[in-house]
Formats: sequence, structure tokens, C-alpha cells
Amino acid sequence: MDKCSWCDLSEENKMFQVYDGEFWSVFLSDEQDYIGRCILVLKRHCHSMSELTGDEWEELHGLVCKVEACLKAVLGAALCNWSCLMNNFYKEASPDPHLHIHVRPRHDKPVILNGNTYTDSEFGHHYALHKSGQIPAEDRKEVFSRLKKWLNR
Amino acid sequence: MDKCSWCDLSEENKMFQVYDGEFWSVFLSDEQDYIGRCILVLKRHCHSMSELTGDEWEELHGLVCKVEACLKAVLGAALCNWSCLMNNFYKEASPDPHLHIHVRPRHDKPVILNGNTYTDSEFGHHYALHKSGQIPAEDRKEVFSRLKKWLNR
Repeated sequence: MDKCSWCDLSEENKMFQVYDGEFWSVFLSDEQDYIGRCILVLKRHCHSMSELTGDEWEELHGLVCKVEACLKAVLGAALCNWSCLMNNFYKEASPDPHLHIHVRPRHDKPVILNGNTYTDSEFGHHYALHKSGQIPAEDRKEVFSRLKKWLNR
Repeated sequence: MDKCSWCDLSEENKMFQVYDGEFWSVFLSDEQDYIGRCILVLKRHCHSMSELTGDEWEELHGLVCKVEACLKAVLGAALCNWSCLMNNFYKEASPDPHLHIHVRPRHDKPVILNGNTYTDSEFGHHYALHKSGQIPAEDRKEVFSRLKKWLNR
């Protein structure tokens, strides 16, 4: 099995870290199917929510509040969809998951980045599973800058 | 807008309560697309994860551990998919969501209930969005009994 990609972060991932907590990091996802989509990653290799310590759980509470407030303030999100799935790890014969949590901001109004307009066409419904998450690099950088600035005020 | 269906529980919902905590209730979902699927519902009307109190967040931690352990012990689940979405409420002109969290156990082995075999055909992938969740009433009751018994030992 390959080395865990959340323990051994790629340069690409490191570049898009928007917040560095004591136990958790927040990264802007490379998938921007929902503008502002982020991943909360535990800084130690841990398999599931059940294995979180009390301190890790407490920091997560603060982070959920902070990230939700940020996505509303900075991108005008109406709500956030939170999920902790980890299905991909279970394609392996010996699954060794690394706990991470997805947050997809959902937008009732279009988000405009560098003059490009992004619409959440599924607003009010479950997020789409196979929507393209590729956006121009300058738009991703714009989201990154706004989130990083707000989260580290 | 209609009265909140989680504040004013239907008899059907009440019948399928598997656990009654101080701040949270757990119900077996009427959707059994993934056998053992449950919903954790906060006992007060609260809009989002950000608005949870410290005590509610702490009880949630214990419940996540308890429900995950239960679904593994009683149904042989390999992992659980957790999600907090609440998109449906945002179909309304004035959304007034009631916080609830979905848990879908994911099964690498078939689950057998009263001689009926249930297979998680998407194991290792995102849960399916439009899979039928209807199972025979006696199979749903069997899951309900097993979960309720384990969670209230």
C-alpha cells in the first residue's frame, strides 16, 4: 500500500492550506465543484471519528464554527454540507484510512471570481457526485486568498 | 411553512427511535438503502452545527462512538459514512432547518435479515443517491430490535 497522502502531504496540498490548527489542518480542495469546498484533515493518522480524543473533538467544534462563518462571510454561502466518508480507502485489501472531513458550501446566489460566474445548480438538493471541480487556477487562488485571510485574521 | 417534522415527531418516527439521549435522539431511518442507516436528531430546534452548545457537541462525540460501535457489532459494518447536509430545508423561501446527522453503515459483507440478503454494491465508493431504501417491514423491525437492544444495554 502507498504511504498515506495525508501524512505525507504533496507540495500542491501544502500550497493550499488555509488554516493550521493544533490538531487539524484545513485545505482548500482541488475539487471546486462547490466554490470554497475545503477538507479538514487530522494531523495524526487516525482511522475514524470514534478514535478522536476529547481535545481533537473540541478543536473540531471550534473549526466547524470558524469555517462555516468564513464560507458565509467570504463567499456568501447559505449553508454548508459536512461529510465524513472515507470510502476510497476501502478499495484497498487492508484499508488504513486517515480521518478527514469534507465541507461543501452551498450557494443560493452565484459566486463571482475574477469576472467568472459560478452557480450552484443543485441548491436545495444533495450535492452532485460527478460535477467537474476544475476551475481556472487564478479563481482557485482567489478563493484560497480570501479564505486564508479571513481564517487567520 | 409546515411545522418542523423533527420538533413534532410522527408516530412512525417515534416507533423507530433506537436511542434517547439527553440532547440527541437516534432513529432508524425509513430509508434502509444501507442496512442500519440512522439519523441523529438534536432534541431542540437548531439550524446548524455552528449553533451547537458545548454540552450538545460533547454528547454527540459519545453518540458517534456508540452508534459506530453498534453498527459494527450488530450488522458487521466495515465503516460508517457520516453527513450533515440539510439541503431539503433550503427548498423553502424562508429555510428553518432542524439539525440532524445521517449515518450510513457501509458493508463489505452481505447483511442477512430473516433470510433476505442485502449487499452494499457501492462499497468503496460514495453512497448512491437514488437507491431504493424500501425493505420488508419485518426486516426493518429486525434491524430496529438489534440496534435498540445493543444501544440500551
